[in-house]
Amino acid sequence: MALEAALARLVPEIEDRLRAFLDDLDFGQAGALKDMLVYHMGWGADDRGGRGKRVRPVLTLLCAGGLGVDYSAALPAALGIEFLHNFTLIHDDIQDQSPLRHGRSTLWARWGVAQAVNAGDALFSIAQLAMLGLGETCGEDVAARAAREMNRVCLHLTQGQYLDLAFEADHEIDLATYMAMIRGKTAALIAFSSAMGGIAAGADEETVLRLSAYGESLGMAFQIQDDALGIWGDPQVTGKSAASDLLARKKSLPVLYGLRESEVFRALWHLEDPTADQIGAMAAALEACGARRYVHEQAEGYTRRAFDHLAHLFPQQNEDATALAALTCRLLNRDY
Amino acid sequence: MALEAALARLVPEIEDRLRAFLDDLDFGQAGALKDMLVYHMGWGADDRGGRGKRVRPVLTLLCAGGLGVDYSAALPAALGIEFLHNFTLIHDDIQDQSPLRHGRSTLWARWGVAQAVNAGDALFSIAQLAMLGLGETCGEDVAARAAREMNRVCLHLTQGQYLDLAFEADHEIDLATYMAMIRGKTAALIAFSSAMGGIAAGADEETVLRLSAYGESLGMAFQIQDDALGIWGDPQVTGKSAASDLLARKKSLPVLYGLRESEVFRALWHLEDPTADQIGAMAAALEACGARRYVHEQAEGYTRRAFDHLAHLFPQQNEDATALAALTCRLLNRDY
Repeated sequence: MALEAALARLVPEIEDRLRAFLDDLDFGQAGALKDMLVYHMGWGADDRGGRGKRVRPVLTLLCAGGLGVDYSAALPAALGIEFLHNFTLIHDDIQDQSPLRHGRSTLWARWGVAQAVNAGDALFSIAQLAMLGLGETCGEDVAARAAREMNRVCLHLTQGQYLDLAFEADHEIDLATYMAMIRGKTAALIAFSSAMGGIAAGADEETVLRLSAYGESLGMAFQIQDDALGIWGDPQVTGKSAASDLLARKKSLPVLYGLRESEVFRALWHLEDPTADQIGAMAAALEACGARRYVHEQAEGYTRRAFDHLAHLFPQQNEDATALAALTCRLLNRDY
Repeated sequence: MALEAALARLVPEIEDRLRAFLDDLDFGQAGALKDMLVYHMGWGADDRGGRGKRVRPVLTLLCAGGLGVDYSAALPAALGIEFLHNFTLIHDDIQDQSPLRHGRSTLWARWGVAQAVNAGDALFSIAQLAMLGLGETCGEDVAARAAREMNRVCLHLTQGQYLDLAFEADHEIDLATYMAMIRGKTAALIAFSSAMGGIAAGADEETVLRLSAYGESLGMAFQIQDDALGIWGDPQVTGKSAASDLLARKKSLPVLYGLRESEVFRALWHLEDPTADQIGAMAAALEACGARRYVHEQAEGYTRRAFDHLAHLFPQQNEDATALAALTCRLLNRDY
């Protein structure tokens, strides 16, 4: 129960400090801009269900705590990362034209594209300001370094996003490019979340690199599992219909593998308006050509690496290291 | 001719270093994202006409040089500011749905809204990375401080932008809110451009504050003059038709004053599809109600303050201080 105890302790503190950070900023005559951000963060009246799980800042704090350091030094980094993640969600929703997130209207759907682009930009700046708060807890050298790393990650995110958007139009995507895309879109920020715990804790370079490698493996494994669940997940568990990613025509890893390896799948994929039977045949064709095994092996490889890194990082498990291992298990659907 | 000499020296160096900074970044498999940024910056084949005048980084370098310091310490700040300005242009063009800038297609018009939002985000990160290069020329304390100030300015910019976008829908805008809007949208970044010259030069706090106040006055005076020229400017000089802002129904300072003060103007303003004669009558109504005098006084007040600050900042004029004074005159249409 180390994880439940850690979440019960950390998530409310993260939430309070995120809110306090926003409240301390001066919005001048643009209080309505702040209202947009409050809504997006899930802090409006009756918004509880609209919040994310704050996994990334929890990772940062557990990595710092796992190294035996008081996690409060890492709090500015945790806030910066959560604001940054939320900035990317605002702009992603515009780019994907998604009307809903956590069951509520997205910012652009409610306030229009122009104001939503601008609100995202505001949250990007706020994320940077929060991260630079490390100057107070760890000194200006750490703050400047963290800001530099953060913006390298952001540049990496925009590269992943570029590829993702380009894929929608592109018919031929090779697996290496797909892996580069999810590395940028998903894994880079999780790697940074972990590494920042070490940087704020004053860890040596080798430890920081290993934390980053742990986070990257975790992020890759998580995303690849998510791709598998989108096709073979149990609807009772995922809350989506079976083969939902095939219905949505999402070019996920199993689909790209199938397009490369199976003529049967290629023919089915290019049908207009496939029937339920044809969707079922697609999933079967993926299974037959080895896509399921391939995707499983990829996820397993990254999962193994994530746990290997963890074992090296925290040989003597304190409470936070135990909670971090449990969180890794939960994210990767493993028993612990 | 101090200004011409300074521009001939500084602008090519700024341009080369901006380009080199972008070229040194790793875009991985997303080289096409870099191509978008190269296009936006005006560095594509035959793009010379597509470049901005790089006024803001020149301000930074002249402020540093005017204080008697080798301007090269301030170069990372100059690059960061120019990239930041260009990031705002990419997102502004999306928000305003402007198809053209410098006579060329805007990013969103050429690559679509989704990719343009993303390219703007990439350039925002690049601006931060460039600014953090101050770590090498001025130390990490200055880099962290500059990053903090930069993001406060960005937050101010988004507040100005919020108000500007809200104004389009809003019929009743008071003059104070309008001033807050242009302070955020235009003056804040020019104030920062000037202040950063002092920060990079290691100037004392009083000097940095005065540089910021100089830049803010310059930015306000410039914007208010621009508002006046949009109605009373000589078409031969402005390259726009007379009263172009009235035709475009732009809620600039003279219009807001007229809406408040003149019933005649209000009635004309609310006509649908006004004729050329009615546009002429609007300009006359503004003149009659004192809008032209009011706007002129406002511009004069800020202009006087800008020159007062300059005189205090650089009592013994070196070459860069002389060039800065000449640049201020040129931006504010004064003889020198």
